[in-house]
Amino acid sequence: MHRLTLDDGTIAETAERGAAMHALVRELFPLPRSITGAGLRATVRRLGDIVPLEVTEVPSGTPVFDWHVPNEWSIDEAFIEDGHGRRIVDIAASNLHVVGYSVPVDTTLTLQELRPHLHSMPERPDWVPYRTSYYAPTWGFCLADGVLTSLPEGRYRAVIRSRIAPGSLTLAEHLHVGATTDEVLVFAHDCHPSLANDNLSGVAVAVHLAAYLRQRATRYSYRFLFAPATIGSITWLARHAADLSRIRHGLVLSLLGGAGPFHYKKSRDGNRPIDRTAGRVLRAAHPDSRVVEFSPWGYDERQFCSPGINLPMGRLTRTPNGEFPEYHTSADNPDFLAGGQLGEAWLACLRIFAALESDRRYVNLQPNGEPQLGRRGLYRTTGGHRHVPERQLALLWVLNQSDGTVSLQDIADRAGLPFSLISEAAAHLETAGLLAEAP
Amino acid sequence: MHRLTLDDGTIAETAERGAAMHALVRELFPLPRSITGAGLRATVRRLGDIVPLEVTEVPSGTPVFDWHVPNEWSIDEAFIEDGHGRRIVDIAASNLHVVGYSVPVDTTLTLQELRPHLHSMPERPDWVPYRTSYYAPTWGFCLADGVLTSLPEGRYRAVIRSRIAPGSLTLAEHLHVGATTDEVLVFAHDCHPSLANDNLSGVAVAVHLAAYLRQRATRYSYRFLFAPATIGSITWLARHAADLSRIRHGLVLSLLGGAGPFHYKKSRDGNRPIDRTAGRVLRAAHPDSRVVEFSPWGYDERQFCSPGINLPMGRLTRTPNGEFPEYHTSADNPDFLAGGQLGEAWLACLRIFAALESDRRYVNLQPNGEPQLGRRGLYRTTGGHRHVPERQLALLWVLNQSDGTVSLQDIADRAGLPFSLISEAAAHLETAGLLAEAP
Amino acid sequence: MHRLTLDDGTIAETAERGAAMHALVRELFPLPRSITGAGLRATVRRLGDIVPLEVTEVPSGTPVFDWHVPNEWSIDEAFIEDGHGRRIVDIAASNLHVVGYSVPVDTTLTLQELRPHLHSMPERPDWVPYRTSYYAPTWGFCLADGVLTSLPEGRYRAVIRSRIAPGSLTLAEHLHVGATTDEVLVFAHDCHPSLANDNLSGVAVAVHLAAYLRQRATRYSYRFLFAPATIGSITWLARHAADLSRIRHGLVLSLLGGAGPFHYKKSRDGNRPIDRTAGRVLRAAHPDSRVVEFSPWGYDERQFCSPGINLPMGRLTRTPNGEFPEYHTSADNPDFLAGGQLGEAWLACLRIFAALESDRRYVNLQPNGEPQLGRRGLYRTTGGHRHVPERQLALLWVLNQSDGTVSLQDIADRAGLPFSLISEAAAHLETAGLLAEAP
Repeated sequence: MHRLTLDDGTIAETAERGAAMHALVRELFPLPRSITGAGLRATVRRLGDIVPLEVTEVPSGTPVFDWHVPNEWSIDEAFIEDGHGRRIVDIAASNLHVVGYSVPVDTTLTLQELRPHLHSMPERPDWVPYRTSYYAPTWGFCLADGVLTSLPEGRYRAVIRSRIAPGSLTLAEHLHVGATTDEVLVFAHDCHPSLANDNLSGVAVAVHLAAYLRQRATRYSYRFLFAPATIGSITWLARHAADLSRIRHGLVLSLLGGAGPFHYKKSRDGNRPIDRTAGRVLRAAHPDSRVVEFSPWGYDERQFCSPGINLPMGRLTRTPNGEFPEYHTSADNPDFLAGGQLGEAWLACLRIFAALESDRRYVNLQPNGEPQLGRRGLYRTTGGHRHVPERQLALLWVLNQSDGTVSLQDIADRAGLPFSLISEAAAHLETAGLLAEAP
Repeated sequence: MHRLTLDDGTIAETAERGAAMHALVRELFPLPRSITGAGLRATVRRLGDIVPLEVTEVPSGTPVFDWHVPNEWSIDEAFIEDGHGRRIVDIAASNLHVVGYSVPVDTTLTLQELRPHLHSMPERPDWVPYRTSYYAPTWGFCLADGVLTSLPEGRYRAVIRSRIAPGSLTLAEHLHVGATTDEVLVFAHDCHPSLANDNLSGVAVAVHLAAYLRQRATRYSYRFLFAPATIGSITWLARHAADLSRIRHGLVLSLLGGAGPFHYKKSRDGNRPIDRTAGRVLRAAHPDSRVVEFSPWGYDERQFCSPGINLPMGRLTRTPNGEFPEYHTSADNPDFLAGGQLGEAWLACLRIFAALESDRRYVNLQPNGEPQLGRRGLYRTTGGHRHVPERQLALLWVLNQSDGTVSLQDIADRAGLPFSLISEAAAHLETAGLLAEAP
Repeated sequence: MHRLTLDDGTIAETAERGAAMHALVRELFPLPRSITGAGLRATVRRLGDIVPLEVTEVPSGTPVFDWHVPNEWSIDEAFIEDGHGRRIVDIAASNLHVVGYSVPVDTTLTLQELRPHLHSMPERPDWVPYRTSYYAPTWGFCLADGVLTSLPEGRYRAVIRSRIAPGSLTLAEHLHVGATTDEVLVFAHDCHPSLANDNLSGVAVAVHLAAYLRQRATRYSYRFLFAPATIGSITWLARHAADLSRIRHGLVLSLLGGAGPFHYKKSRDGNRPIDRTAGRVLRAAHPDSRVVEFSPWGYDERQFCSPGINLPMGRLTRTPNGEFPEYHTSADNPDFLAGGQLGEAWLACLRIFAALESDRRYVNLQPNGEPQLGRRGLYRTTGGHRHVPERQLALLWVLNQSDGTVSLQDIADRAGLPFSLISEAAAHLETAGLLAEAP
């Protein structure tokens, strides 16, 4: 077991991890996911092959804050046939062709009558858009605008063989137990059907982070949570409202396989340790990355950062939701991702974790004057030199600032010294009995 | 009764109000005002024709904080005659010709003996300056320097038929009762004699604001206070020291009829809601307006913002006191003002009031996660769209930020959305039972 | 007795003080100082001729925080002889030639065996460096690199006749008693042997500040502390830990006789009154001066600003330690200093003291509205003027801001008025009974 310091081995592992994540995305892509149901369960089962998962089924109708867990949706078949019995649109080709949570239907209509149930993207005539209607009972199909506009007048048969009935919503968690019960929460929504970047990329990065951590000893415990967007995080939060104080930092992961630069979106408060740490790590490792302010739009940070919850959680993506054309369309498929990009995202998360692990607050146990470092072998024995070596300066900075409120990262920033030097100085001082971690 | 939202009707009313205010200034101009006495009472009587006023007479000698209410000053006649009995200077021509609170005199002097009692402005030889001596018993005349320098040597008779005797100081108030007892205090000093911009403009705007509000239902109560400068506000404050906590916002009004851009002068603390609101309103409606820092010089904000009182009151003027040549001279007459400018000032004040009225703090009643907006008809029923409509984003922002400490204006600023959208979102959420106004 | 306001006399005295300080530096230069011992005691004795000193001898072995007072070091003789009995290096030429706290030795060695005990500066072949080894028992010599490199192979005799034995550490203090027991602490380390700027310059300036203050009445008490670096300040702090709260401001003085601009180094907190005052004074009097952030490296501010002590103490130097080539070498001799520069430093310190003395916080005793200044003769008796004289504006600012938390310097900054005007206004208001000094 190693401490969570990133070494050459970790970096060397990145390419292999990237390839494995990309393969996982391809494998999960066809499963008919929704916010409940068989596709979601199959996805969770596959993730459970990689790391052990605790799976919770929450029955339909369970009240969760202002919501109730919805009925479960199953779908066997869905298509539109023209007058000649030719299938114009078929869920067998892509899960996106059916509006999520469509009620069952088997009816024959004129094209004009059918039109209100059809969704397309005129600006991208080859792409199929993604649509859902979880809470208003309706049915519909999504199709390429090129197909839609080529349909002749006539009668069409629309068939959706679905069931919406009491069942359950599936939550899956992996807990990596660290030295303390303080937790880092990592969340990836797993309800989107055949979309790769949103959010199989986040799912794949999260599960491979969990797999990596299994080989490592950590200070924090790390909880990886896979759940449907919105209702999944709300359900989990409602069930764990009493335990949230153990969450010290958190990240929502999504959109990590595309080509854009990293975007870290701050927590609601905007100045939590995760915000400062993620900003520092990304600035150093990815100069083109951006830090953006919180807004109550996006992914499940909307729930984790609601005013009654207000967790110290940020969000890591590459180009954010809605800002690239393939978003929520059939063009967001596995070919849109690259293994190298997934690997880089995985490594960026590990860098953030490593920085969180090493960023501690200490109390100087000899705070009156400087302690005598010389007799502890921590200081050169001759005096009078013009300059102080950086290693000794780092010791002095850590001692001077460690009043229990200032973190090592803060000290590195104030001192203008590399974090590694400050962190190493703290370790020496702790060994020498001059420093104790702050409660 | 309407809510205090400004509509086309309000804006259309501006020109008419401007003309009425200008006419009022012309009518009040000749009255022989001072910090006490008949001219002040006649002024208040005229204002009472426009809105009901509660008039308080505070007897001379009443202790008010560090001061006493002064004796009352009356004046029947005042002139200087030359050796031929020609009146060189006569109060009948302008109230400015006599130093305010001059003691009675009837004496014949050489020009040289007279000179220390004469005030002129060599740099503006045609204008008569304004001078007072409320607390040091003396007498004097103000006259054009051109007249003064043309006086031949010889003997002159100076006559002032005044009385300084126990009486009372006149305070006048109009209270517009709103839905709450929280108050907006509007103050205009009404003691200056024949000066139009300082401060008949402030008096006219204040009384027409009061008249307008009578047609409207408001959340705040609005108190319009007309009182002599300095001693008037001190007297009022001393009598109401126990009730000042109900004053949530306030404005001192003066110099509103001239041609310069609006100047909002901040409260002593500089970051009260009135400061932020007035700044926002003026920036939006009058890009050439300026916001200036507090200083303890100027008008009655000196009293309202003294350290023991420290009310959240700013001051609205156009070009400030002392910064235009006509200030405190006979050139500050009704022709120096324009009805359009008075109307614009009246409307600017209403805009500030409307912004204060609508800027509330709310508490999200479902603060854990987002509430289910869809089932309340507040959210579109299909999901998956690339962009969120601004109206829905406004709902999310209001919900996310409403922890009871953040105002709607603050939310609009943080969200970068128009205030109207945020305010409307809050109204919808309140109707839906998701939001309650913060106590 | 005069108040501590700097007048023409003070400024005229600067040149004479500068010359006296320079002479004192020359006189003290040859004494064999170390952190204990005879040279230190002789130095203190000489300072006691200038101002009365309370001298404390703290026995070796006394525990002081994390340290113990070290044994006392005495040295009678130290030299290196070549094979011909010629003295290559001799402490008689300069105290710098022996590593401070060298243990006794009398041995004959080859040049190669001797080399590890020899310290030189190859980059400055004519200069002798300064080295110490207080806490690791060893011996050594410092010499010019030109001498070292010219030594032929052969055998050399190294002799150090020193004793390290129980004795005591010498602290010397002068307390100037002011009107209050609140103290300004001035610290100069006095342990460096034949080095002029570091720190006979600080010692000389401190003792002449003490001498000057003896002629003056002050509000604060001023404590001048002369002690060895590090162990001296630690020893003093350990003995006075209970009384440190009386120290309201402090300055560490060093490196004041060279040619560079003043550098004020901030206290650990960085925003104490001493930081703001020193910054203001230096900006005004020495536009080329610099204010630098705190760091835990340098002189005894390291101890005074340790986290458990955290006194409001800054440091005044000219070019800081390590930033000029002569630092800690034989080139830092009395000729490196100039009397004018010492005098200028002395005056800069007095300016800081004067600013501290006059920077008070007051409470307005008539805080409700403005008090009636006219009846107290503090306000012009005629009203209506366009502009307010600065003297009256200063009165209004002091009254408006004096709630007990804001200092006169802060008021001057906010008002944009000269401090002298604000200070004078406060004096008038205090005399008038309108202002009381804040507790």
